Amino acid sequence: MEVVQVLHMNGGVGETSYAKNSLLQQKVITMTKPITEDAITKLYCSKYPDEIAIADLGCSSGPNTFFLVSELLKVVDSVRQKIGQKSPEYQVFLNDLPGNDFNTIFRSLSDFQNKLRKQLGPGNGPCFFTGVPGSFYGRLLMKLLFRKNSLHFVHSSYSLHWLSQVPQGLESNKRNIYMASTSPPDVLKAYYVQFQKNFSLFLKCRSEELVDGGRMVLTLIGRRSDDPSSKECCYFWELLAIALSDMLVEGLIEEEKLNSFNIPMYTPSPAEVKYEVVKEGSFNIDRLEVTEVNWNAYQDETDLSDAFKDGGYNVAKCIRAVAEPLLASHFGEGILDEVFRRYREIISDRVSKEKNEFVNVTVSLIKA
Amino acid sequence: MEVVQVLHMNGGVGETSYAKNSLLQQKVITMTKPITEDAITKLYCSKYPDEIAIADLGCSSGPNTFFLVSELLKVVDSVRQKIGQKSPEYQVFLNDLPGNDFNTIFRSLSDFQNKLRKQLGPGNGPCFFTGVPGSFYGRLLMKLLFRKNSLHFVHSSYSLHWLSQVPQGLESNKRNIYMASTSPPDVLKAYYVQFQKNFSLFLKCRSEELVDGGRMVLTLIGRRSDDPSSKECCYFWELLAIALSDMLVEGLIEEEKLNSFNIPMYTPSPAEVKYEVVKEGSFNIDRLEVTEVNWNAYQDETDLSDAFKDGGYNVAKCIRAVAEPLLASHFGEGILDEVFRRYREIISDRVSKEKNEFVNVTVSLIKA
Repeated sequence: MEVVQVLHMNGGVGETSYAKNSLLQQKVITMTKPITEDAITKLYCSKYPDEIAIADLGCSSGPNTFFLVSELLKVVDSVRQKIGQKSPEYQVFLNDLPGNDFNTIFRSLSDFQNKLRKQLGPGNGPCFFTGVPGSFYGRLLMKLLFRKNSLHFVHSSYSLHWLSQVPQGLESNKRNIYMASTSPPDVLKAYYVQFQKNFSLFLKCRSEELVDGGRMVLTLIGRRSDDPSSKECCYFWELLAIALSDMLVEGLIEEEKLNSFNIPMYTPSPAEVKYEVVKEGSFNIDRLEVTEVNWNAYQDETDLSDAFKDGGYNVAKCIRAVAEPLLASHFGEGILDEVFRRYREIISDRVSKEKNEFVNVTVSLIKA
Repeated sequence: MEVVQVLHMNGGVGETSYAKNSLLQQKVITMTKPITEDAITKLYCSKYPDEIAIADLGCSSGPNTFFLVSELLKVVDSVRQKIGQKSPEYQVFLNDLPGNDFNTIFRSLSDFQNKLRKQLGPGNGPCFFTGVPGSFYGRLLMKLLFRKNSLHFVHSSYSLHWLSQVPQGLESNKRNIYMASTSPPDVLKAYYVQFQKNFSLFLKCRSEELVDGGRMVLTLIGRRSDDPSSKECCYFWELLAIALSDMLVEGLIEEEKLNSFNIPMYTPSPAEVKYEVVKEGSFNIDRLEVTEVNWNAYQDETDLSDAFKDGGYNVAKCIRAVAEPLLASHFGEGILDEVFRRYREIISDRVSKEKNEFVNVTVSLIKA
């Protein structure tokens, strides 16, 4: 069974989707909007198609699930009105792992559709929504999620940095739980190899599903540096490792357990993303950009409670949302509150002393 | 808001889906299998298409959701093997109201797909499953559920006897809760008009969505008789009305409440179904058949507990599954246990004295 699957399946749904539905994630979508807008506009203006089939991979469940879709449809509708074209029909495929809370998406769909209809201009085309459960990493013999040549636009935000499994051969990573400055070279390599394998299969599957000229915009947590263990991409895991190590010293967790715990994630550099795309060969790169979002992304919001303004609280909550199921299945549920109490303290301390950011790598691709 | 929607939205998901996932419903699918098999075989053999898009409308959530699909796919696969054809690709759209428990369907999908793969012959084509939430009664300006000309086969079992709303003008139906022998003619007419409106719009929507030559098999609870208030179709509601009337006499419910309560259902005769199909004009009738399933459908099962063998228990439970949300929103939740305790007693008594059946009307249609 895939680890990403375990991660979602075991997690309390509300918690798991918190990270993807946080204000932070909404900021990321807004920040990368110029690239997404540019891609969907170019797609639409290249052929003025009668129908546009859009897939959002790793859609999660919550306000951000519809936020992206409505942004895309508003762009197309605005362009087609300006040039006096008839509206295309839209088909929207919302994909996530089977453990995702599709019920919540489906139950809020009607309200969303009514709101969208009002936001779009008169004469906007019908929009068919479907839920598609499944892993976007084709597992068995390149199992596709969608029919061949059936999609025009694929979007994925904050999902593809998750690996399909913890890389093999991390025995020497000991007290680290991710790539760290003290990780041996073979650990860094094992992580990179797993990323290459996953990302390249992802590209291959999507290239089969997209029509010629189809487009794809992907945003991953990544890094600027060439060094995969640089602080910019693994600092929030290093701080979690500190919390766990402290608990080990106090005898609250076992050494063997900590030594064998590793996070199935990879935060690539733009160069690594580019290298995989070129090597796989199905796509041309239109844009490849890096953005940053402050850990304390809420500090400029004025309408939030103090709890929300506490950067430590927010980052800890986001990380807890994704890490909790992994920690729970490895260490047991008993340690969770204590780990995250410590983690939040550590983060609050760092946030007050230094500026920390998530680095986002966004790539806009065209099927060759 | 549609009543059918209320019915599903308000119902505890487990209870609501009980009726559709009972052994009784599985019997209905098995009983109508010759018609379904015949239709999908004719569809496949008319063109040997590369892809078959199947929609199950009112799929519910539970074992029967997949039972029907697997039957259809096994038939096609067996035929294509016999004649040495390459397997088509399958696209399966599982539709129900947004309140349906799609999470449960999606979480059991992977196991089902693995099982199916083993049951089908080698070389069986990929099968893409998607969930499509929404009412199959196009509400706003004939709102479709699927893209035009996108489906090859539509199936719906035990859903279409539900009306989109309680008919208007039932004030004179007083202590009856459905069409009964004591219902005035204007009540019977109001019910029939609502059925005609719903069924004809259903046919119109589906004819837009089906390709030419596409097929549809629909099974509804119906009646043989021309009389819409005949015992064969409304007896189980009459018995529920008795339970409610007894409670009225004992002062447990209010007269005004009972007088204004009516079930949004219509159990048509084969002739009425035929009349609507011919009048609407988009479909030709291939087959139109009537089957019966005993209220006590479990009595010949040997591996069931005594509770399951109690016909009163089973019918009451099936009816409770669909009636509970309607009763709860009209009378309040407080009366439910008492109503159904009485209902079960009444039914047990009748089941022991007389044979009672659900009459099923199945129609197999071809898009003209």
